[in-house]
Amino acid sequence: MIITRKIEFSASHVCRKPELSEEENRRLFGLAANPQGHGHNYVVEVSVEGQPDPVTGMVLDLKELKDVLTREVVTPYDHRFLNYEVPPFDRIVPTAENIAHDIWKRLEPHLVGDRRKLRQVRVYETPDLYVDYFQEDVCSG
Amino acid sequence: MIITRKIEFSASHVCRKPELSEEENRRLFGLAANPQGHGHNYVVEVSVEGQPDPVTGMVLDLKELKDVLTREVVTPYDHRFLNYEVPPFDRIVPTAENIAHDIWKRLEPHLVGDRRKLRQVRVYETPDLYVDYFQEDVCSG
Amino acid sequence: MIITRKIEFSASHVCRKPELSEEENRRLFGLAANPQGHGHNYVVEVSVEGQPDPVTGMVLDLKELKDVLTREVVTPYDHRFLNYEVPPFDRIVPTAENIAHDIWKRLEPHLVGDRRKLRQVRVYETPDLYVDYFQEDVCSG
Amino acid sequence: MIITRKIEFSASHVCRKPELSEEENRRLFGLAANPQGHGHNYVVEVSVEGQPDPVTGMVLDLKELKDVLTREVVTPYDHRFLNYEVPPFDRIVPTAENIAHDIWKRLEPHLVGDRRKLRQVRVYETPDLYVDYFQEDVCSG
Amino acid sequence: MIITRKIEFSASHVCRKPELSEEENRRLFGLAANPQGHGHNYVVEVSVEGQPDPVTGMVLDLKELKDVLTREVVTPYDHRFLNYEVPPFDRIVPTAENIAHDIWKRLEPHLVGDRRKLRQVRVYETPDLYVDYFQEDVCSG
Amino acid sequence: MIITRKIEFSASHVCRKPELSEEENRRLFGLAANPQGHGHNYVVEVSVEGQPDPVTGMVLDLKELKDVLTREVVTPYDHRFLNYEVPPFDRIVPTAENIAHDIWKRLEPHLVGDRRKLRQVRVYETPDLYVDYFQEDVCSG
Repeated sequence: MIITRKIEFSASHVCRKPELSEEENRRLFGLAANPQGHGHNYVVEVSVEGQPDPVTGMVLDLKELKDVLTREVVTPYDHRFLNYEVPPFDRIVPTAENIAHDIWKRLEPHLVGDRRKLRQVRVYETPDLYVDYFQEDVCSG
Repeated sequence: MIITRKIEFSASHVCRKPELSEEENRRLFGLAANPQGHGHNYVVEVSVEGQPDPVTGMVLDLKELKDVLTREVVTPYDHRFLNYEVPPFDRIVPTAENIAHDIWKRLEPHLVGDRRKLRQVRVYETPDLYVDYFQEDVCSG
Repeated sequence: MIITRKIEFSASHVCRKPELSEEENRRLFGLAANPQGHGHNYVVEVSVEGQPDPVTGMVLDLKELKDVLTREVVTPYDHRFLNYEVPPFDRIVPTAENIAHDIWKRLEPHLVGDRRKLRQVRVYETPDLYVDYFQEDVCSG
Repeated sequence: MIITRKIEFSASHVCRKPELSEEENRRLFGLAANPQGHGHNYVVEVSVEGQPDPVTGMVLDLKELKDVLTREVVTPYDHRFLNYEVPPFDRIVPTAENIAHDIWKRLEPHLVGDRRKLRQVRVYETPDLYVDYFQEDVCSG
Repeated sequence: MIITRKIEFSASHVCRKPELSEEENRRLFGLAANPQGHGHNYVVEVSVEGQPDPVTGMVLDLKELKDVLTREVVTPYDHRFLNYEVPPFDRIVPTAENIAHDIWKRLEPHLVGDRRKLRQVRVYETPDLYVDYFQEDVCSG
Repeated sequence: MIITRKIEFSASHVCRKPELSEEENRRLFGLAANPQGHGHNYVVEVSVEGQPDPVTGMVLDLKELKDVLTREVVTPYDHRFLNYEVPPFDRIVPTAENIAHDIWKRLEPHLVGDRRKLRQVRVYETPDLYVDYFQEDVCSG
């Protein structure tokens, strides 16, 4: 069984590599390469897989889940310019792909447990574009 | 191929275990432990996997699917206080997890067929929290 | 200029008049007359009209607005059975119409100001049904 | 990692088989058998699986993806009567299932690459009904 | 107070005037002039203004409202090609503007009452384009 | 009759007044005062009031409307840091209120006509917060 909770934050980012030329950055990232940056209302869906506890009927404590998501994701990301204020985005481009991976790494140690594991992190950059990060071996036989 | 249909119902529930103390219930279930109950507009997505019929191009008859969902889920659940009016929630806590499992059990015998099977039941308790129930062996090699 | 903020709460209600017969209640309120009650995820949009402050560019302090909405609406309504726990719904039927009117009365004294006034309260009982309450004289000449 | 982009088009279709009787068509397809046709705002979610490029942090070039989706899907489908103007729907019934399969076939040659592959095509016929088409061997061991 | 109920139907239409040239039709209506037609999932919000009944707390009987909307709008419009099957669209172009006006004329006689009147008809042709029809004198002094 | 079209853009902004202290800015604008800025997916609904043309059945040419909205709003605002790249936000705080007013001023000269006028500009900063700008005399007698 999988339980998914949605959270939101608003942030700025710019998609460009300082070592590349302006022309190359524009070719690779389009409008998103504008060095002043631009922003999004990011929506994140965090999915945890596990078996419900037989007494409580819950895969995990929702209050505890909310606290983890707030502390590990919303607080560091919300109302920030990701490239300048949220490592590792001083070193890697804050694409939706890299943001999903970074959120996975921030959450995974706090959500793994005896009867559960982090299953997927979905990041909506806009309502029309989203990325799913999950462990590579999910479907291996 | 998977076809998914969304249905909705409005119901009340309370998340508490009578054998536990008030304090323990509040710790486990938070506001949801309020014994008077509270309610949600539940949204359910039912997914059936199969091959489209070569003549009709459909995995299953949508009219028949709608009739099954209405009869087996909407009619018994809609405008009910789940704990008092919808078994098995007189015995187990109506968390989203347990509701998803119960809907699976109600639907599965009516949706299995030669070329198809029930694949997943998703239950949204709110737009920000949902649960997916599916058979454990979906991805086994 | 009008600024609108959305809030949500989950609650139970039952639409019936104790002084009427079961048959009469069912005729008037349909499934909503079920005496055990049922519930909704209510969504409320609160609209305040005013002129933006020339310095801050804001009609009102959003932090203050959020505090008022939480204290006056979310805290008393959320995770409650309205008929039994939230006056005046011990005396009047908690239809969406009456809920919108009650929220107006709770908020109006806290949102009126020199350069602003409460303009409208919208209550969604479901995504397909909503009610707007506003002062009767809004459009009088 | 999977990246998903949403596109939309508006089209007409009719679900009927010319070789069947009117009565048989109505039984199989219900209102959708009306020979004059009817229409939908179709929403399509195209999912590509791959590893992000270490330099750009992107699974694929979003500008290129948008161009492919526009050229291969939106341009031929949008504002068309599918049965009369978009092959193969002169020969097979344009159910959501068959539309998803056709979109897969149109996109797959353009989206496969060294580090990526088309993972899934989801087609919403209405907000309450959608179909997922994917390769059969996705989960094989 | 205003109560609004949302309904949906799927239909085809074509926007062209037979007395104009192909070139002129394309200039006026763009892709929507394609003579084969195309379709939409139309969403309609019908708003009725009135005072809640002091006993029931409702502006109008929701069951009665639903029956009127189904009988007067959904049944004649749903799964139809508007130009060929739904008068007056054999004579006037079924733009969103004209559809909203036609729905107003169909509903108004059935929704007017002692304590209430039809206030507005909103028609979404797509999620990004909608039209509001209302009586011209709504705001006159 | 009113026709409304939705557009979207992604941008960064920061809400602070350079002449105020850090403490004062934090008190007035909260997290939005972070000098590095943050961003949103802004959604704008532009409403034009008029009478449909008797021949075309349209209040205005939708293609022309889209061109105006793209040229006057999306192109200058999209993927920009409003404070640094979009006047007048070098001088006034880019709150949702001020953005709505600026969009009104950019659009109004292009949308006024013999049979129509700009009626309202709605700006969603997030799905939970929006502002409506309209002419003060809309409802005067």
